[in-house]
Amino acid sequence: MESVKSQSYEVHIGELAEAALNQHIAKSGYSKIFVLVDENTKEHCLPFFKKIFDGSVDFILEIQSGEENKHIHTCLQLWEDLSNLDGDRKSLLINLGGGVLTDMGGFVASTFKRGIDFINIPTTLLSMVDASIGGKTGVDLGSLKNQIGVINQPQMVLIFPDFLKTLDPRQVKSGYAEMLKHGLIKDKAYWSSLTEKSNFTDASCIQKSIAIKNEVVLQDPTEKGLRKILNFGHTLGHAIESYCLDNHDKKTLLHGEAIAAGMILEGYLSHELQGLSKLSLDEIKKTFLTHFDKVDFTDDDIDAILQLLKYDKKNSHGNVNFVLLHSIGKAVTDIKVPEELFQKAFAYYKE
Amino acid sequence: MESVKSQSYEVHIGELAEAALNQHIAKSGYSKIFVLVDENTKEHCLPFFKKIFDGSVDFILEIQSGEENKHIHTCLQLWEDLSNLDGDRKSLLINLGGGVLTDMGGFVASTFKRGIDFINIPTTLLSMVDASIGGKTGVDLGSLKNQIGVINQPQMVLIFPDFLKTLDPRQVKSGYAEMLKHGLIKDKAYWSSLTEKSNFTDASCIQKSIAIKNEVVLQDPTEKGLRKILNFGHTLGHAIESYCLDNHDKKTLLHGEAIAAGMILEGYLSHELQGLSKLSLDEIKKTFLTHFDKVDFTDDDIDAILQLLKYDKKNSHGNVNFVLLHSIGKAVTDIKVPEELFQKAFAYYKE
Repeated sequence: MESVKSQSYEVHIGELAEAALNQHIAKSGYSKIFVLVDENTKEHCLPFFKKIFDGSVDFILEIQSGEENKHIHTCLQLWEDLSNLDGDRKSLLINLGGGVLTDMGGFVASTFKRGIDFINIPTTLLSMVDASIGGKTGVDLGSLKNQIGVINQPQMVLIFPDFLKTLDPRQVKSGYAEMLKHGLIKDKAYWSSLTEKSNFTDASCIQKSIAIKNEVVLQDPTEKGLRKILNFGHTLGHAIESYCLDNHDKKTLLHGEAIAAGMILEGYLSHELQGLSKLSLDEIKKTFLTHFDKVDFTDDDIDAILQLLKYDKKNSHGNVNFVLLHSIGKAVTDIKVPEELFQKAFAYYKE
Repeated sequence: MESVKSQSYEVHIGELAEAALNQHIAKSGYSKIFVLVDENTKEHCLPFFKKIFDGSVDFILEIQSGEENKHIHTCLQLWEDLSNLDGDRKSLLINLGGGVLTDMGGFVASTFKRGIDFINIPTTLLSMVDASIGGKTGVDLGSLKNQIGVINQPQMVLIFPDFLKTLDPRQVKSGYAEMLKHGLIKDKAYWSSLTEKSNFTDASCIQKSIAIKNEVVLQDPTEKGLRKILNFGHTLGHAIESYCLDNHDKKTLLHGEAIAAGMILEGYLSHELQGLSKLSLDEIKKTFLTHFDKVDFTDDDIDAILQLLKYDKKNSHGNVNFVLLHSIGKAVTDIKVPEELFQKAFAYYKE
């Protein structure tokens, strides 16, 4: 499996990852090696890591899994741990976990003594194809996601697809939604091959998704232009995700489940405003509904979700700019959407 | 007064600073402008700033002055303020204060929504010639200084020497010690002119010190080599500063006062180990003791300070590497010092 080259680091997949890790450690002369885990990766991934790692781990740092722990107080605990265990500027932090853990571990490493090296080993499909690529690190501020952070690149990203076998299939599906998104915004052939495959977790699919995200991020690391296309499905998807999270009578959706709905809705907007064909729109809807349960939106739900969207507006100068599709594989950014179309989009989703 | 060009920003002094600020604001299109002050700069510096600033300040953020407030909880308050006041990625933070405020404000700006623009307006001599240049931002972790932070450059640094008139003369002297250090490590002529001048706070001296620090920092932004020379006087100076801070029966020393003693002591080590002439050594001692009271070190004090130095050792792989002088204007880094010389250095200081 070919490695994907980023600006300052490489993403190694499968059999190459083990060799890349051990070569890097052998030549780097780190003073101490810390591995960050949560209770799940400690049980399911750390034994594998220890088996393939030729170096010696000095300390295991453990945090509680879950978005609700992704805040500055967890960082403070980790900074204190690093300091109390004599971590210095030549120390290395290896982040072994999903997106919450790699985002937070990356931020802690980027700010401890003004920056120590870190390596990301994502253990969920979502973090393999999304969170671990692009250098975004950070934590939440209250209920606002990723408000505190920096953009800083890891030394390398290592992907072991075998970790996916330890996961709940629903979690794996959540990552699949992001992979389908990569096809929709950038590569029609990849979209087609993904929708036809029975096993989307093989190394070649993961590698392709990473390559697409990496290509976008390299051209626009700070999200001034092109990188925005990665937000396809996320504008409405985030509002849906937040709404379901805050309403205890709604089933909580995983990120991928929420953006799957978001992509159908924003696909409809693309059809209305950017000439996405009805055929392609129907194909998008059918594909997502094959893999993800249809969410049952009442009229009240829809009103509340659109209110959330307006609240988001306030935070970005009174405009919501959508990423829409011109066709499958071709995205356009900064499209304003007339309000009356939102109800029609939900009507199409419910059809 | 000429402006000093750094890699990505400029330092403007005196009459040019006002114009540079207003031009930058006029062309940048910031969504909101926040100014960070403490209770001192709110009273003594903010009125002047408002007078010269053509733009409109949206919000004033206020923190308590003092190193004891330089920690992550103050940052959390500032992040929440920025968020609650609808700060977005196009917002600007102007830091109006001394080194504690510009270090902390720079860190908050560098991490809010993964980085917004900031401008430093240092208001003490120490922060003008030292803290505001070089992009080090951060906060303390418990009693350990600057453990959490990033290296990130402001949009510009603006120096208004008039602010110094509002300061206690002892505070101003503290900055003078750093200026003398710049001469000692890099420029004999500057050292000589500074020691002869009656007024070291004029714009040309400040400008020269900034230029020296900037030249060093540009060549080695992440302190892998040359930048270490800025630590001359600081290895023993920091130990002395910490010791006096923690012992209530000792008079607390300002940073400049502690490193003034540190430079005499490390000057002695330079004479013993690096061939600094006795004449130069005596000149260094005489200069500092003309401006800074001699610290009364008992034998117990010296033992405790050397213990602190050994504790520091532990944090850097068991070695303390000193920056010493080969001659006035020429520094050498990474010099190990035999323990028996420390007592002799203190004996020379007390002579």
